[in-house]
Amino acid sequence: MALEDPEYSAALQERYAAQPRPGKICWNDTITTLLSHRSVRAYLPHALPDATIERLVAAAQSASSSSNLNLWSVIAVTDPGIRAELARLAGDQRHIAEAPLILLWVADLARAHKIGEPEGAPTDALDYLDSFLTASIDAGLAAQNAVIAAESLRLGTVYIGALRNKPEEVAALVDLPHQTLIVFGLVVGWPDPARSASIKPRPAQAAILHRDRYTNDAEAAAVADYDATLKDFQQGQGLPASGWITSLLARLANAASLNGRDRLRNVLAARGFPLR
Amino acid sequence: MALEDPEYSAALQERYAAQPRPGKICWNDTITTLLSHRSVRAYLPHALPDATIERLVAAAQSASSSSNLNLWSVIAVTDPGIRAELARLAGDQRHIAEAPLILLWVADLARAHKIGEPEGAPTDALDYLDSFLTASIDAGLAAQNAVIAAESLRLGTVYIGALRNKPEEVAALVDLPHQTLIVFGLVVGWPDPARSASIKPRPAQAAILHRDRYTNDAEAAAVADYDATLKDFQQGQGLPASGWITSLLARLANAASLNGRDRLRNVLAARGFPLR
Repeated sequence: MALEDPEYSAALQERYAAQPRPGKICWNDTITTLLSHRSVRAYLPHALPDATIERLVAAAQSASSSSNLNLWSVIAVTDPGIRAELARLAGDQRHIAEAPLILLWVADLARAHKIGEPEGAPTDALDYLDSFLTASIDAGLAAQNAVIAAESLRLGTVYIGALRNKPEEVAALVDLPHQTLIVFGLVVGWPDPARSASIKPRPAQAAILHRDRYTNDAEAAAVADYDATLKDFQQGQGLPASGWITSLLARLANAASLNGRDRLRNVLAARGFPLR
Repeated sequence: MALEDPEYSAALQERYAAQPRPGKICWNDTITTLLSHRSVRAYLPHALPDATIERLVAAAQSASSSSNLNLWSVIAVTDPGIRAELARLAGDQRHIAEAPLILLWVADLARAHKIGEPEGAPTDALDYLDSFLTASIDAGLAAQNAVIAAESLRLGTVYIGALRNKPEEVAALVDLPHQTLIVFGLVVGWPDPARSASIKPRPAQAAILHRDRYTNDAEAAAVADYDATLKDFQQGQGLPASGWITSLLARLANAASLNGRDRLRNVLAARGFPLR
């Protein structure tokens, strides 16, 4: 355990920029990996190391699973034709076609339904919102372990939430059965060092961390500080300095700003998730 | 990067037991930490290292956030009275009172609502199911980073989904505002070596990993194999050898087996999540 890891210190500084940040002693390689995360949207065409998929899935399965129900699956897509089509469905996200692998994380209630059938056992709890939520959260915990495993191997990743913009088309493309939904994708590949990504600053902890009870005395000031911090960051990246608040409000204005995700409840109902 | 890390090999073997498992070369400390996860339900009363909360939250904030919306918060509860009450509300889970810290992960749409108000900007997208799902998944990604950070420091953790059994009582206990929900808790503390937990086997990858398209040719055999594997594991732990299928079906039989979570949709509606 290093007392002063320069790579960690640099990552922590980039993560909070000019905002208040926690101290920097008593760290280790794993935490440096966590702090150094950045979403990678530019990849080299190089192949992944042998058995990368199996290794990432072993890490994913090692995450907690609510009541050990294992209500998720993952589809490892390496086929270039399917990746190109996924790139298109996600709103022309070229990196999906560029990287050699996208993992599709599935909220999977079909397996549990199937386990009940030959036993003649009811599985009515699967029809409730909580079961879909459990499946989605557990897919998230699993995927995040895969991210950390990948980054520890110097691979890059980026989550693709936009697969929920066109869920039926994505489902048809990969033969998804009833009672399953792809909640998000995760691109995996070798980052292109010529088009490298930066660590994005997040809000200071005062904006999101509460002690014993929820209070928001410090929130408004921290939000304003973060808006200014993100403007500085964008300027440094040669991007329009629009800040945080403007883009957040644009993304949340109305149903249309959800880019099709406003249909999620109806899509789920049609796919066998009544969400009682 | 170790070519043969004995700690990693042992963890991989425990994770899959007698089932087929991936190979074991080209690993590192971070992946060993990921593979070695176990849920800890027996803690020493010792205090946490200085600034543990800030460090875990820095790791959590470093996880991806959909469109950088940061739709989550975390409440760090150290107060013994609140922990005792949370232990009771979660169905008398003593470890919540025993460990020095529980992190409550909040799907937080309140902050975004509040950002819109002074600007007179609409935030109608927050009323849709997809926004609640995004907030819950992103809380999951963040929490999983906190888990990995904690485990890299040799701390133990366990997720507490049972806080959703009594969401209104939990919300009132920690002054949760409208448009927020605690999706789960995460206990953090020093594992008691005298009551140590084992790595729980998961299904073989054939049960959950698909290639290019969803297929389940191998699923039924893998499920049967896993049921037998879990019986062996339970026997080795001196527990009733009930296997996987029996407990899964008991947990999913009907609304009553959700222990109150069948009410989640109504609870959310009352708390300002219409889930359109």
